[in-house]
Amino acid sequence: MQTGLELMKELSITSPAKIVLVVIDGLGGLPRDSFGKTELETANTPNMNKLASLGNCGLIQTVGTGITPGSAPGHLGLFGYDPLVFTIGRGVLEALGMDFDLAPGEIAARGNFCTLDDNGMISDRRAGRISTEVGKQLCKLLDGMEIDGVKVIVQAVKEHRLVAVFRGEGLRDELSDADPQQTGVPPKAVSALAPGAERTAGIVNQFLTQARLRLAAHHPANMVLLRGFSKKPDFLRVADIYKLKAAAIASYPMYRGLAKVVGMAVLTTGPTLSDELATLEQNYTKYDFFFIHVKAADAAGEDGDFKRKVSVIEDADKALPRLLALKPEVLVITGDHSTPAAMAAHSWHPVPCLLHSRWCRPDRLIKFGESECRKGSLGLMPATSLMPLAMAHALKLTKFGA
Amino acid sequence: MQTGLELMKELSITSPAKIVLVVIDGLGGLPRDSFGKTELETANTPNMNKLASLGNCGLIQTVGTGITPGSAPGHLGLFGYDPLVFTIGRGVLEALGMDFDLAPGEIAARGNFCTLDDNGMISDRRAGRISTEVGKQLCKLLDGMEIDGVKVIVQAVKEHRLVAVFRGEGLRDELSDADPQQTGVPPKAVSALAPGAERTAGIVNQFLTQARLRLAAHHPANMVLLRGFSKKPDFLRVADIYKLKAAAIASYPMYRGLAKVVGMAVLTTGPTLSDELATLEQNYTKYDFFFIHVKAADAAGEDGDFKRKVSVIEDADKALPRLLALKPEVLVITGDHSTPAAMAAHSWHPVPCLLHSRWCRPDRLIKFGESECRKGSLGLMPATSLMPLAMAHALKLTKFGA
Repeated sequence: MQTGLELMKELSITSPAKIVLVVIDGLGGLPRDSFGKTELETANTPNMNKLASLGNCGLIQTVGTGITPGSAPGHLGLFGYDPLVFTIGRGVLEALGMDFDLAPGEIAARGNFCTLDDNGMISDRRAGRISTEVGKQLCKLLDGMEIDGVKVIVQAVKEHRLVAVFRGEGLRDELSDADPQQTGVPPKAVSALAPGAERTAGIVNQFLTQARLRLAAHHPANMVLLRGFSKKPDFLRVADIYKLKAAAIASYPMYRGLAKVVGMAVLTTGPTLSDELATLEQNYTKYDFFFIHVKAADAAGEDGDFKRKVSVIEDADKALPRLLALKPEVLVITGDHSTPAAMAAHSWHPVPCLLHSRWCRPDRLIKFGESECRKGSLGLMPATSLMPLAMAHALKLTKFGA
Repeated sequence: MQTGLELMKELSITSPAKIVLVVIDGLGGLPRDSFGKTELETANTPNMNKLASLGNCGLIQTVGTGITPGSAPGHLGLFGYDPLVFTIGRGVLEALGMDFDLAPGEIAARGNFCTLDDNGMISDRRAGRISTEVGKQLCKLLDGMEIDGVKVIVQAVKEHRLVAVFRGEGLRDELSDADPQQTGVPPKAVSALAPGAERTAGIVNQFLTQARLRLAAHHPANMVLLRGFSKKPDFLRVADIYKLKAAAIASYPMYRGLAKVVGMAVLTTGPTLSDELATLEQNYTKYDFFFIHVKAADAAGEDGDFKRKVSVIEDADKALPRLLALKPEVLVITGDHSTPAAMAAHSWHPVPCLLHSRWCRPDRLIKFGESECRKGSLGLMPATSLMPLAMAHALKLTKFGA
């Protein structure tokens, strides 16, 4: 039996029709009180409302009922990759989030400076949240070591956080974490989780020994903890699955990295939605699929700022006519997960989704929002159904069977 | 874990209750403009509307979101067979569509006459669309060859199309296509795709060599291309799964063929719905499941004829009282896929479905149509759920577990 991606591979055809996928990060929300409206429902969105009337709406579920997706599974789902099958290691995600161009075979780990007490026990897993500036200085002490022909690159992320990349031949990522994720215990030695990974484990442990020596005088950041050892995954590429020439327009490194992992071209763009639309206009004839990422909604949600999230959504709505002027054959507006300001965090709530093409049976909804989407024809839809649907509406899929 | 069909096998019981499944081919549609109605919504269907009020409605999805089903997967889904698991080869479908009574072990291929230029390259894959009459004459030149104890039967289908059946012992269908599906290249030799298929490949290639000689003087139809080599599949039969005595009433060969593949009795009938209802009345006491096929709606949709499709649906509605007079315990009215006149082709849009029995919680919908069905209690339902539901309403399923 065929899986969804295999079916897409078999049925997809190339055509000039354009699909534009706008991901408003963290779009879904919650009302502030029992009888109130969500952020999206509160926002004045005349352009999206018109599309919700003419197009098809629903609520997207990414991983499964009740499961809160991180940004990586959230986006992989929208691109049609089942996030329970296609997983990306934490170390790789940290590297992608820094625009680190991880080569095949390299091992990335997520790290943080920590404090060891006089007995070598971890007393603070975040080294008193040292400043980003101090973190950068300390990373210089660790960066560039050579161990058994393997180069170790250490780069600061933010505050106590860092990423370590091991570059060399024959490295394996089946390694246990060095971070025990608790205080009052010593850092753990890394061990091989599969035959053949012993040499890599040894190299990482030598690095950790060296790191402890070099950091000894730098209390509270007198040690480093590593976890999430992983290689860049070798996923099927969108060009091979959907026969699409796909481009990503995203100003945050993490999303550019995710787009690269699935084989999209990553276009240079500026930080605002207006910059992103300019990039879209300049490249419109060169690709037939565009992923446009709007980060600010998630950031506002994470900050618990209901009003700011509403205003980010309203700005996106105001920008829509400029996008619609390009007349894409299929336009999808959705999010990678919900980030209700009321929770100040990602959540499991299904995400509103809107698809517009000339081949929709109009849902005739009056507002793009969570409650109306519940009445939409897409129903409660797994995220992995979105790409097949967009492909169908772009007339880029042939018939199954005769 | 049990699949759906295994569960049916375990739970189904025989009873005198009748299930009638009316398949209005290509029933689902699209509005002609953004604010308009679909074909079914436009049609005046007082009888179906009454059933939609008293019964249960929903929208059926056959293969998956966005996937346009061919007729074979469309019907297999309605009969409860997952079309991603139960597949039928192209050659077999072509033979079924001609009422060719394919025996187990025989290999059928879909073929077409083509034009070869002086260098032996294909210059026209359809031989200038020769007339059906010419096609018939040319098939006589190829029909009846004997190669290594294998008889080759060649029958004209329509214009340049034909079907070739290889009859003999030990034949295998793991064969590559001889049709390169492009011009400017020579026809391909067939090769074995599995160990043991070499002999069959050799026989097919001998046939193709002979065919080229016999057709040499018949430009533009001076060669034949074959593809989709396949045997009639050995599916579980409806009698074994549902313990039903099932009969098909269909005037088109393809649908009679599909019914035979799942083990239904095929009743002789005339071309109109009135003929089909007469057949139903005559055979009503002899079976407990009837599949009635209404072809004309799909044909009108394929022709892009909105009005004619509306009128076919209205005729079906007018015929309903005659069917209802038989008082079947369960009546289902649905389609095998959508064929919107606006697209003049099969489409991926989910298909309206209506189930009526005395055990329905009434949906109280006001019209049988796409928009109303969206509000129905069956929701967006996979086609394979339809037979279990019909069986349940006929009280033909025992309890699962104690």
